[in-house]
Amino acid sequence: PNCMLYSVTPITVRYAETDQMGVVHHSNYAIWFEAGRTDFIRQLGMPYSKIEEGGAMLPLIELKCIFKSFARYEDKLIVRTYIKEYTGTRLLFHYDVCMADSGKIITEGETMHVWTNRDLKPVNIKKYRPEIYELIHKACE
Amino acid sequence: PNCMLYSVTPITVRYAETDQMGVVHHSNYAIWFEAGRTDFIRQLGMPYSKIEEGGAMLPLIELKCIFKSFARYEDKLIVRTYIKEYTGTRLLFHYDVCMADSGKIITEGETMHVWTNRDLKPVNIKKYRPEIYELIHKACE
Amino acid sequence: PNCMLYSVTPITVRYAETDQMGVVHHSNYAIWFEAGRTDFIRQLGMPYSKIEEGGAMLPLIELKCIFKSFARYEDKLIVRTYIKEYTGTRLLFHYDVCMADSGKIITEGETMHVWTNRDLKPVNIKKYRPEIYELIHKACE
Amino acid sequence: PNCMLYSVTPITVRYAETDQMGVVHHSNYAIWFEAGRTDFIRQLGMPYSKIEEGGAMLPLIELKCIFKSFARYEDKLIVRTYIKEYTGTRLLFHYDVCMADSGKIITEGETMHVWTNRDLKPVNIKKYRPEIYELIHKACE
Repeated sequence: PNCMLYSVTPITVRYAETDQMGVVHHSNYAIWFEAGRTDFIRQLGMPYSKIEEGGAMLPLIELKCIFKSFARYEDKLIVRTYIKEYTGTRLLFHYDVCMADSGKIITEGETMHVWTNRDLKPVNIKKYRPEIYELIHKACE
Repeated sequence: PNCMLYSVTPITVRYAETDQMGVVHHSNYAIWFEAGRTDFIRQLGMPYSKIEEGGAMLPLIELKCIFKSFARYEDKLIVRTYIKEYTGTRLLFHYDVCMADSGKIITEGETMHVWTNRDLKPVNIKKYRPEIYELIHKACE
Repeated sequence: PNCMLYSVTPITVRYAETDQMGVVHHSNYAIWFEAGRTDFIRQLGMPYSKIEEGGAMLPLIELKCIFKSFARYEDKLIVRTYIKEYTGTRLLFHYDVCMADSGKIITEGETMHVWTNRDLKPVNIKKYRPEIYELIHKACE
Repeated sequence: PNCMLYSVTPITVRYAETDQMGVVHHSNYAIWFEAGRTDFIRQLGMPYSKIEEGGAMLPLIELKCIFKSFARYEDKLIVRTYIKEYTGTRLLFHYDVCMADSGKIITEGETMHVWTNRDLKPVNIKKYRPEIYELIHKACE
């Protein structure tokens, strides 16, 4: 199932996020993807901080980034986030990081996650927290 | 001279900024101070990225933080930034990081900077780039 | 061509590298891959800092990580780094991050790079800096 | 009471730790201080990860850094860490970050900490975990 819903997260590049090449260090994109994911999940109707308090966690099992261009200090960017696939046990997010003005894509990425309990053991969220599965399912119909 | 002008920078705590204590890792405040400084300088009328392109840099020579409370994942914060003292060679910024809703102060900080050229040699900005000194002076009268 | 040479980089997990899940935040693996790459290149016979001073740069165009287990604060890890493929224009590194004692794999990754000049324009390193290409070629025969 | 014991932590500057000024971003020193603190505490006889598992935590209430020079990518540094003052409720660490070869000081810092329980409420470690207080006291006589 592919999800029509997507979220838009504004980012202003921080000085600390640059490296001596004069551009954003690539490790920051994973952190911006996560900021995008946070906004997407909040938009579903239940902040991820509440999901964790309820005992469900969503660690990564895979990360892919394709770097197409460079971002620089003070650049205004947006992260567009959506769910590409989901089941009761897994969740695949897609991200585009673009220049806020021109829409030019800087980096694309995907993160695959598994649902776990607090002890980081895999669970089926459909049974473990059906209300969370319902939020995803409803948003992605 | 003390500056009446201050800037307000909104921050949403990122997951990557937490540590295993369950709160924001203290090293992030220096990065948020810098985001505040970026906004403050842009508000003066000349973005810091342009200042650097013009050959003037503003490295830190001192950093102080006082941690009064804890911030957590997804908390909405603001960084309030102002200039506390300035001369032709130095600049002292003050920062308050507060909860956006209650105004409760989480962390206070100060950073002392020197003006340098591109080779990181100290300069007097009043002579080196008088237009930058004027922007500060005008804002802080 | 596949390279027999590999480097071994010891890592001790820093507190700042953990997140509120109580494990290493996934964004740190890309930084440890880079520490591994630095050691690998130094071992080839020319430190990457010298390569950059000479005007050649090696930005990423792709990053993949597979997270198989979790690492925690104070864990002793090693990053094993090797070249999986190379041409005059590209370089593909592979990384295994393992527990130093048991050898258990925590994370595997790959980074694809292009050679560029100082302005981040692609170059063929075989022509641009033949001595660098030779070091790689000799190590990987 | 001043402590004769000190620890020495080797650091190799990572590319990700540089910024577009071409030097180490100042926020990394607090992370290196922490790496130094980890080594110092392990050397006392009880790793900090064990201390936390036992329910005692040591958050910062104050951080000071004085930046005297710059460090660069691939530089070999050491962090020298010692306890400057301690009571049952507080602990003051001092750090020198130096070039490993010349001993030239790059940055000096201090961090003041309070002992807390797992809920981040202040405790007197002399009563809460006397064996930890004893380790510090014995090392600093």
